[in-house]
Parts: sequence; C-alpha cells; structure tokens
Amino acid sequence: MEKNIYLVGSGLTPFGEWWGESLRDLMEEAIAAALKSSHLNATEIDMVIVANMLAEVTNNQSGLGALASSLLPHHPPALRVESACGSGALALHTACAFLESKRAKTVLVLGVEKMTDASVDAVSQALMGAADSELDAPSGLTFPGIFGLITRRYMHEFGLTREQLSVVSAVHHRNAHENPFAQFRQKLTPEDVTASPLVSDPLRLFDCSPISDGAAACILSTIHKSPLRIAASQMTSDTLSITERPTIVSFKATREAMSRALKESDIDRSDIKVVETHDCFSIASVINMEDLGFAKQGEGIRIYEDIYAGRTPLFLNNSGGLKACGHPVAATGIKQLIEVGKYLKDTSTQWGLAHNFGGAAASCGIHIMENTNA
Amino acid sequence: MEKNIYLVGSGLTPFGEWWGESLRDLMEEAIAAALKSSHLNATEIDMVIVANMLAEVTNNQSGLGALASSLLPHHPPALRVESACGSGALALHTACAFLESKRAKTVLVLGVEKMTDASVDAVSQALMGAADSELDAPSGLTFPGIFGLITRRYMHEFGLTREQLSVVSAVHHRNAHENPFAQFRQKLTPEDVTASPLVSDPLRLFDCSPISDGAAACILSTIHKSPLRIAASQMTSDTLSITERPTIVSFKATREAMSRALKESDIDRSDIKVVETHDCFSIASVINMEDLGFAKQGEGIRIYEDIYAGRTPLFLNNSGGLKACGHPVAATGIKQLIEVGKYLKDTSTQWGLAHNFGGAAASCGIHIMENTNA
Repeated sequence: MEKNIYLVGSGLTPFGEWWGESLRDLMEEAIAAALKSSHLNATEIDMVIVANMLAEVTNNQSGLGALASSLLPHHPPALRVESACGSGALALHTACAFLESKRAKTVLVLGVEKMTDASVDAVSQALMGAADSELDAPSGLTFPGIFGLITRRYMHEFGLTREQLSVVSAVHHRNAHENPFAQFRQKLTPEDVTASPLVSDPLRLFDCSPISDGAAACILSTIHKSPLRIAASQMTSDTLSITERPTIVSFKATREAMSRALKESDIDRSDIKVVETHDCFSIASVINMEDLGFAKQGEGIRIYEDIYAGRTPLFLNNSGGLKACGHPVAATGIKQLIEVGKYLKDTSTQWGLAHNFGGAAASCGIHIMENTNA
Repeated sequence: MEKNIYLVGSGLTPFGEWWGESLRDLMEEAIAAALKSSHLNATEIDMVIVANMLAEVTNNQSGLGALASSLLPHHPPALRVESACGSGALALHTACAFLESKRAKTVLVLGVEKMTDASVDAVSQALMGAADSELDAPSGLTFPGIFGLITRRYMHEFGLTREQLSVVSAVHHRNAHENPFAQFRQKLTPEDVTASPLVSDPLRLFDCSPISDGAAACILSTIHKSPLRIAASQMTSDTLSITERPTIVSFKATREAMSRALKESDIDRSDIKVVETHDCFSIASVINMEDLGFAKQGEGIRIYEDIYAGRTPLFLNNSGGLKACGHPVAATGIKQLIEVGKYLKDTSTQWGLAHNFGGAAASCGIHIMENTNA
C-alpha cells in the first residue's frame, strides 16, 4: 500500500446519550473538531467517507454521505460504508484505497451513530441485522445471546470462570475513568461485574457494551503530513452466520487481518505496545487477544489479569473500550484509531494497533499506526 | 485513473416481485450468472462490494458485504456501499478505486434489493430516508412528492405539458418490451400515461418507477480482459436537502459528474451513442438529458419526442429504465452498466454511458464505457 498516508486531524464528540442532539449535530461537532485539529480549511477535504450502521432504522436517514457533504461548504464527493459494528474500520480502509488510487488526496472519514432516538427494542432488533437474518435470527437470538453462547462454549472448552471474565470490564472501566469522552467513567471491581444483572447467561450487564450516541472523525491525507502514519490497513470477511463456522471461540477474520497487517507493516507483533480492540462483549476481548496473537488460545484472560495487576507493558483499550467508552457502533472503529494515535503521541511510542469487527467478526478491519517521531 | 479496468462478467436476476426468493437467493442468482459469464472461478474474486439501500428495513439485514462473502467458497474481503438509489454506481466507483489502489485485482460488485418483503408504507418511508430527515421529511413529503414539486416547478419555468411528459414512460415501456429482465414489458401510449391514476400531482402512476426485487452483479478486473473497458468513473455529491439548493429543476451533481467523466475519458459528448439514465420519475429523465448536456435547459423532452418518433441516433434506457425495467434501488446502477455493455457489444458501438443518482441527485455516479473492439 501507499506508505505515506497520514492522520492529520481527528475529532470526537463525547459518547453518551445525547437527547438534545441530532444525527446532523453529532456529525457537525466531530467534523468541526477534526478540521480544527488538522489546521486545514474545509475545502481541502476532497472526499468524505461516512461509516454508519443504523441510521435508516434509528433516524429514517440513508445517504449519509450526502448529508456529510452537505455540512461542508464545497459539497465534496461522499459515500457511506457499512459493515455493522465494523463499519468504522472498513470506512478507514476504503479511504486508504481512495488515497492509494490517487482519486483523493485528503479524505474525511466520519463514523456516526444516533442510537437513542429509537426504542431499546427497535435498536436491539436493528443490531441483530449484523447477524444472518435467515440462518441465525429466526432462532430468536439477539447479539447478547450470540455472545452468551460463545461465552458458554469458551468456558466449556477452556475452563474460563465467571470471576475471571469479570476482570475485563474492570480494566475497561478503570481506563475510561481517565477519558473525558467516555460514556461510563465510574470504576468497577470484578465483583461489581459478577454481581450485575444477568443479560444472557453467563453474560451480565457489565459485560455488554451500551447503546450510545456519538461521532468520530479522522482526516487522512497523502499531501499533508503528521508524525502519525498508517502503516497497515487490512480488512477481511467471514461467514455472516455463526452456524457456518468450524468454531465460535476464535474468529478467522481477526486472525487473517492480523497476519496481513503485520506483513504489510513489516513489524513484529511484539513491536505493538498499544491496542484498541473490539470488546462488544467482554468475552470478545478475551478471544481477540488470542486471535491477534498476544496470547495462546484459552489464555486470553491472562492479558487482562496481568493488566489489572500491573504486570504487562501492553496497553489495551485505553479509551475504555466499547464497554466503558461507549459503542455508537460505526463510530467505534474510527475512535479506536484516534485513541491509538493519541497514545502514540502522548507517550512517544512507535507502534499501535486498532482492531474493529462487525457482527460476530463477520468482517474485521485492522489498522497499524506508526508514530514516526518515536 | 487506471486505464485498464475491464468488465469481465455480469449477471442479472429478472427485476420484479419475487415472493418466493430471499435477499440471499437473489444475491446467489446474480453472482452465479456473473461468474458463469466471466468464465472465472469464484476464488479468482479477491474482493466484493455490495450496493444496498434498504435491507436493514426490509429484511432486518445489515452487513451485506459479509453475506455476499458467505456465498463464495473463500469468503473474500467484502463491504457494503450505500448512497440511496445511487448506491450501485458508487459501489462501482469504489471498486474502481480499490482496483486502482492495487489492493484488488478482480472485484465482484453486487447490487441487490428485496423491497417486497415490507409493506408499501414501510418501503415508502424507508425510501424517504434518501431525503433529509431533518429538513425535508418533516414537511410530510415522500419521494413522489419531491418529484411532483420538481415537475410543477419545471412546468412553470419551461412550459412542459402533461402530455409531453407522458412520452418519457411510453419510450421506456417500448424499450422494456424487448428486455426479458424487465418488470413491466407491456407497451404504453403517452395517452395511457396521462390517464393513469394520480400519485402526486402532476405525476401519475406511470411516471413513477416501481417497488422491485432484483440483483445485478458485475465483475471488474485489471488482470482479466474483455473488450469492455471502464473509461471513466466519477462520483459527486450535493446537498441532501432540496431546500438548500438554488434550483430544483437542474441537478448540480449530474452536471459535475458528467463534466469530470468526459474529461477523464477524453471523449466528446457526441461520441456517446447509448445512455442509461436515472428515471426514478419521468421528470428526472427530462432534467437528466439537460444536465448531461444532450439538450439545452427546458428542452430535455425533445430527446424523448425525437426517440419516440424515431428521429435521433441516441439510444436511451434500452433496458426500459427504472420505470419499466424496475428499480430495486441499489441494483439499478449496476444493471445500467451491464445494459450499456450489452448494447455496445451487440451493436459494435464504441462509447456508452451509465448515469445513476441517489435521492434528488444528492449523489451521482457516472461511468463511461468503451467497447475497444468497435
């Protein structure tokens, strides 16, 4: 790929429940923040890619590309990319392709979701659109149900306990405590997680990412520079239905995307010091650590146990992850990249990784970022 | 752009009301037909881009990229592009960018819509998602309403009569009569159109494209060859809301895309002998002829009058257009390219054009195709 795609600006709205703001308001706020941080004029944006999953259902709004374009004075070409909760990373990947094609030089990538305008039932049903509507949904599953099954199977295969799993959200909430953009900043103990209300046995409320409003915007450019370079951008797909897979306790899409991303960036996994990973449910983070190769299969929880005890140099989900930072679904993948970039800059660290997936990892996007000043 | 992107395969389902087929069935049928026509193995597809507007609402299905990937044996990377009724052309444009970036060599672009699974009310509301949900929809407009307003204003400015406008659908139905994939193959006289039931004054039923099921698939490649070359691929955007535009009787997105496409292909407008254009409502075709530069403003209807009387060498909407071929919205832009390619091959013609837009031309995609054997 093009070796010189830079993150030259970024902007976030806080993630939360924003009853007073519309989809458009959230988009405007993130775009303004990204432009401000980039020191570019709006008219230097020559393309917009919007990531969104749910606006047709939650806001009766399609064509979010044109809506974003409407918010810029020169109405640049714009389109929407969707791949359920992985929409953000796939929009970033699409932006990289347009930059590499030379059709665009400076691309605004905007993830947005306004989920609280619809009832919880309607949102839950719409989120189930990320599963297979013919092969999975008719069984009565929701996404907490799918990840409940995955947790049950994982416990069966590897002996993970309920108490161990609770460490994941405790780490995420501790991290979110320091993040002014996070939806839930209160600290939780593992015991709090274990004692929270049952959602889909064995998953409890504090294992589950919330319904959130929010937007995240990145500006990627080949002609404007910054110390933050996109060293790899990879996407993969898998079967949409969990019934067509050989296993549900490991995600092929993640494994393949990671393998390709390491090859593309030409680094070792051990060079990566900071990771944002897709913890839609706590069990996902455990599996992700294994699929990304940071732990052996069955041992992903050790990473979280080590982090909680202060025993590892790997920094994981500093944002608070989907659980505590919040999960406006299509904004998440873009927020992850922003968070990784911020950490690399603030700590003079060289390499970081953002890992985002859609559905039960039916699609996956991984970006590796280099701080060229580190 | 890359000068060597070829259309190496294509497949269509018939457009219509397919109660017995699911979204997945339609996708499978179009993919199989495209693969067959390309003589490629499925595993030679290294990326899939799906165009879809409505499946979240009509089928409770997101993540159509992963669904399409599920239908191929090797589950290649896949994503969905959406820009309302312009999704098809923008998916083709995105495929071109991926090919130009060298990230993909052979891309399957699949447009699909299963609209009849939802009630007409639900579909009408979902289609209104292509307008601005904050600035347009609260006025009570539907899309027939928006184009009714446009028609009224156009008649006011340019003196177009109801009887003249009726020639548009008469031409489209005459063309569809010969198209085995068309939803409505019966011939209509202009008088039939004028006498059809009122939908949104002055638009009548036979001015309006229908609700349709269908899928269309193209295979674009830089390593496999065919006589059909993509000579230009352009996309543009405009404000989503019609209230933010200086006029509603001409579409800036079309004018800009056409100007860029002619420049990219380095041909004159007069070289183009066959056009598929976006006639979501009959008035749109009249305006499109002007915005594409085939007629002066106010005189677009003359093209249709000339075609109806057999007085012009321009072949327009041989498929039957959206009105008579049917309009499974995100499949339309891809069907247009297939239809243009078929005409170029069958008649040894060199240049053709496909013009697709979303909403009231809030986004537009134009492709110019060359038959290098002509």
